[in-house]
Amino acid sequence: MVEAGITACIVTNFDPHHSEYSGVHWLAREYFSGFTGSAGDLLVLADGGGLWTDGRYSIQAAEQLRGTDIAVFMTRVEGLPSLADHLASVLGAGDTVAVAGHTVNVAMYQALEAASAQAGFAVRTDLDLPDQVWADRPPRADAKALDYPLEFAGASTADKLGDLRSDLAAARRDAIVISALPDVCWLLNVRGGDVPFCPLLEGFLYVDRARAVFCVDLQKIDGALRARLEGEGVALAGYDEISALVSDATGALSLCPQSTSAALYRSVPQGVDVTLAPPPTEVRKACKNPVELAAFREALRHDGVAMVRFARWLEAQVPTGTVTERSAEAHLRALRATQPHFLEESFHTIAAYGAHGALMHYAATAETDVTVGTDTLFLVDSGGQYLGGTTDITRTFAFGELSELERLDYTRVLQAVIRLTQTRFRKGARGCNLDIMARGVLWQHGIDYECGTGHGVGQCLVVHEGPQNFSQRLVDAPLVPGMSITNEPGIYREGRHGVRIENIMAVVEAEETEFGVFYGFETLTLAPIQTAPLVVSALSDDELSWLNGYHVRVYESLASLLDGEEQRWLQRACAQLQRSA
Amino acid sequence: MVEAGITACIVTNFDPHHSEYSGVHWLAREYFSGFTGSAGDLLVLADGGGLWTDGRYSIQAAEQLRGTDIAVFMTRVEGLPSLADHLASVLGAGDTVAVAGHTVNVAMYQALEAASAQAGFAVRTDLDLPDQVWADRPPRADAKALDYPLEFAGASTADKLGDLRSDLAAARRDAIVISALPDVCWLLNVRGGDVPFCPLLEGFLYVDRARAVFCVDLQKIDGALRARLEGEGVALAGYDEISALVSDATGALSLCPQSTSAALYRSVPQGVDVTLAPPPTEVRKACKNPVELAAFREALRHDGVAMVRFARWLEAQVPTGTVTERSAEAHLRALRATQPHFLEESFHTIAAYGAHGALMHYAATAETDVTVGTDTLFLVDSGGQYLGGTTDITRTFAFGELSELERLDYTRVLQAVIRLTQTRFRKGARGCNLDIMARGVLWQHGIDYECGTGHGVGQCLVVHEGPQNFSQRLVDAPLVPGMSITNEPGIYREGRHGVRIENIMAVVEAEETEFGVFYGFETLTLAPIQTAPLVVSALSDDELSWLNGYHVRVYESLASLLDGEEQRWLQRACAQLQRSA
Repeated sequence: MVEAGITACIVTNFDPHHSEYSGVHWLAREYFSGFTGSAGDLLVLADGGGLWTDGRYSIQAAEQLRGTDIAVFMTRVEGLPSLADHLASVLGAGDTVAVAGHTVNVAMYQALEAASAQAGFAVRTDLDLPDQVWADRPPRADAKALDYPLEFAGASTADKLGDLRSDLAAARRDAIVISALPDVCWLLNVRGGDVPFCPLLEGFLYVDRARAVFCVDLQKIDGALRARLEGEGVALAGYDEISALVSDATGALSLCPQSTSAALYRSVPQGVDVTLAPPPTEVRKACKNPVELAAFREALRHDGVAMVRFARWLEAQVPTGTVTERSAEAHLRALRATQPHFLEESFHTIAAYGAHGALMHYAATAETDVTVGTDTLFLVDSGGQYLGGTTDITRTFAFGELSELERLDYTRVLQAVIRLTQTRFRKGARGCNLDIMARGVLWQHGIDYECGTGHGVGQCLVVHEGPQNFSQRLVDAPLVPGMSITNEPGIYREGRHGVRIENIMAVVEAEETEFGVFYGFETLTLAPIQTAPLVVSALSDDELSWLNGYHVRVYESLASLLDGEEQRWLQRACAQLQRSA
Repeated sequence: MVEAGITACIVTNFDPHHSEYSGVHWLAREYFSGFTGSAGDLLVLADGGGLWTDGRYSIQAAEQLRGTDIAVFMTRVEGLPSLADHLASVLGAGDTVAVAGHTVNVAMYQALEAASAQAGFAVRTDLDLPDQVWADRPPRADAKALDYPLEFAGASTADKLGDLRSDLAAARRDAIVISALPDVCWLLNVRGGDVPFCPLLEGFLYVDRARAVFCVDLQKIDGALRARLEGEGVALAGYDEISALVSDATGALSLCPQSTSAALYRSVPQGVDVTLAPPPTEVRKACKNPVELAAFREALRHDGVAMVRFARWLEAQVPTGTVTERSAEAHLRALRATQPHFLEESFHTIAAYGAHGALMHYAATAETDVTVGTDTLFLVDSGGQYLGGTTDITRTFAFGELSELERLDYTRVLQAVIRLTQTRFRKGARGCNLDIMARGVLWQHGIDYECGTGHGVGQCLVVHEGPQNFSQRLVDAPLVPGMSITNEPGIYREGRHGVRIENIMAVVEAEETEFGVFYGFETLTLAPIQTAPLVVSALSDDELSWLNGYHVRVYESLASLLDGEEQRWLQRACAQLQRSA
């Protein structure tokens, strides 16, 4: 920094597509700060620096940065300064901020430009200082691309390209660059192995009226895939060719402000009419077609089998004192790995006993690992990438007597899950209109959780998928039939325990009346919910009946995939709960 | 238009403050079109024209414009063209649109400017064509101003000015023009008689660091009020002096895009830094202080007495066949008029029998008036302006046997009212996050209503007050303790009947826990809710208990204001409902 005349350097974990998870090659912020959370940007100053991350990581960031000169700042909290706000308050004319242009997106770059205009400092995006001093940087991923079968995709690349061109015409755009890896993979019906937990392939897709060009490391594409893509109207080019395509752009161009890097944005020639908007593929990808939904249901059946075996194993092994958070995690991974079409885990499992369960994004390490006992609750949030779908399920287990508070918390979380599951809503309603149907059950008792109630889920892509979610934040993304979304309220009592119960649901059509079109939810996740921890007397008849009906469905859906012993265990786990119990 | 070289003329009902209700002098759109709804803009072209209004008035507009060349267009419906969009599609270079600059606000003016830039037509705001041809135009209102007593206001003008200047400093603004009449009247603790249904005084308030200037027809202000205002730091000037104040502005000026007229906006000199934002008085006014709340509660007690007498009168008279919608309306007005501190009605009463109840904004006329019978439901939505508060209450009555559908509809609407009333929510939640707590009760049965669930209520001001509301629309206005808001879900079955039950609630603090600060609602409205139409078996224990508790409160709050006969009637009306009933 001193040699290059730089006052401040921003270091991120982002790849040139601003992916939620990046390949290890891109994890510069993690390398330079030691902070391993999935969200956070590092600011390096001559003396010390700062890390901006969100509420999920406040405790972890404070611990991992203890003893450094790096202060922790929270993002997304009203009234607190963003990284750009902070720069505007500490820097001025004569100062220069450096950030490698491919490691920040347009939204962040615009915030930096605004701060620079206000405070007078300069911004350079042409220097990659982290790369210059990172000696043992891991190489870029080189996994081969996978041709994603039409029996899971349900629509051809040619058809999806046709829809995209219709969407562009409707928006009066001549061309678009799709940078978001899930959108590129979904449209081209390809998958890859470039990003841990996500079967993504790094590449850009340029589409105009005449051409569709996939910019990708050509070594990853075999002859058959190239032939299929070319046959569907997609030309192939090297990964870096995207810059040349953008530099040659004329007419009206659409770029996504979230997934487009500042470097690519700055290569747009003067005079080109740029619209910054999410790509139309975002909503189309989110609304699964019937073939995708059928594959998703089947993936969740197999994931349910793994969960049944896991719960049965826990029930037998926990009382012997031989299970730890990490051994449970490993056993669950092994159980999933035997399921058909399993590729990898969809995120790092949270297996959290007792007080660890209150850390919303806990990941057990050798240092924190504890034996899972019978005294309190064991929260396990995990998921798998299957060809047919991405799964994400939380069950909270108990293997002994619980306190009244633990039982009440468990019961209320289930009541919250049920109320949202049963909600019918008018076409047009968004997740922020519905969030209270789960969260409000806890609000009535003065309880809340510091995160959304649910997120969209990809199909053999990323476990978090937009635009839909359940949250108090005002996001104008109506829920549309075919969307998959999690339902995962929770109670997190610091130093004590955590409860979360999570199912994936699909938005489905419910009815059309004189008053309009109404939608509802179908629960896709199929795994028993422990009934022993419930305060049965607190459940309404309606709630009891939902739970019993769900367990009938779970048993009927999974039994044929299980052996006799497992079937008998599942029968007990799915036994109808009586009020006298 | 031909003489002046004008292709299209826009005629509105707006006064120079863009008030929801305007004085009769300003009702140009009504005069030229014959359409009497409270919302709607008229476009006059050489051949025919159009009227843009919202969904509440679709039926009424179609009826009142039948036989004219004026087409009806809906506003606020996605995909439908606004007036400005329409102009952009039918006009082009060489065309000129005229609209009197004081009859459109900045938001509409900017939409016109954008359409003009796109389509090439010109916009003139300096011509008032409607005024030139409106021979018998009513004069401007000249009612005297009223000095609003501190015992109702709870805060002095000097204190409110101090808060405003703090807000301006926090927003880095040097000056503000407050054009919205409720904000001007609230800050200055004055009321007037310039607008039907609203005790408003027409005027502007200009405030900078050194001065506060009230621009008003000086004939309306008596010596005592002038002395009080001057003593609190407010100078008086003529109504039209606001233009000169704005023309002389320097520094950073704040204007409200909703309540500032295009004419005033255009008088801002070049180079002045203008922020378009709602005035900070909007939220401060909405959060009633303890003195205001006490006065509000008292006003609602007196309004409750009028409602009790009205219900008792209906019960006695309807079976005799002597009550019509209009006679009921007149009797209710007379009952309110005897209450202390009553000024006028707060809106035109909706007294709607049978199928009329399905017309959300029905107002009985000599032509539509019908006898109120005992066969179906009678919906009465009414309110009063009292010195201490503005009221708005709906009760739906039955005086004979009802059909199963009518009883179910009535019961479900009450269940929706109760669920929203009982909702606890975390600090920060907005009306759009809570709307489903009422509406969702009906959604479960495939029923919806084409309007919000509730609106803010002024205090001796306008019955609709922002920024808070209950609606599916994403309005980022958190609910804050002290805000008053209606809770009024409904079921409207075209050609059959309408059910609406409406109470005013105040946002109150509920509890603070380890998870945060939680708010709830206190019902301010005090009037019995008929129990005879209820399907008691459909009510939960909790709902029954809320209703019985509410009736205890109603009786205890009102009994001392009633005579013996009335007390006995109220006792029966508030009798505890039993499940066996």
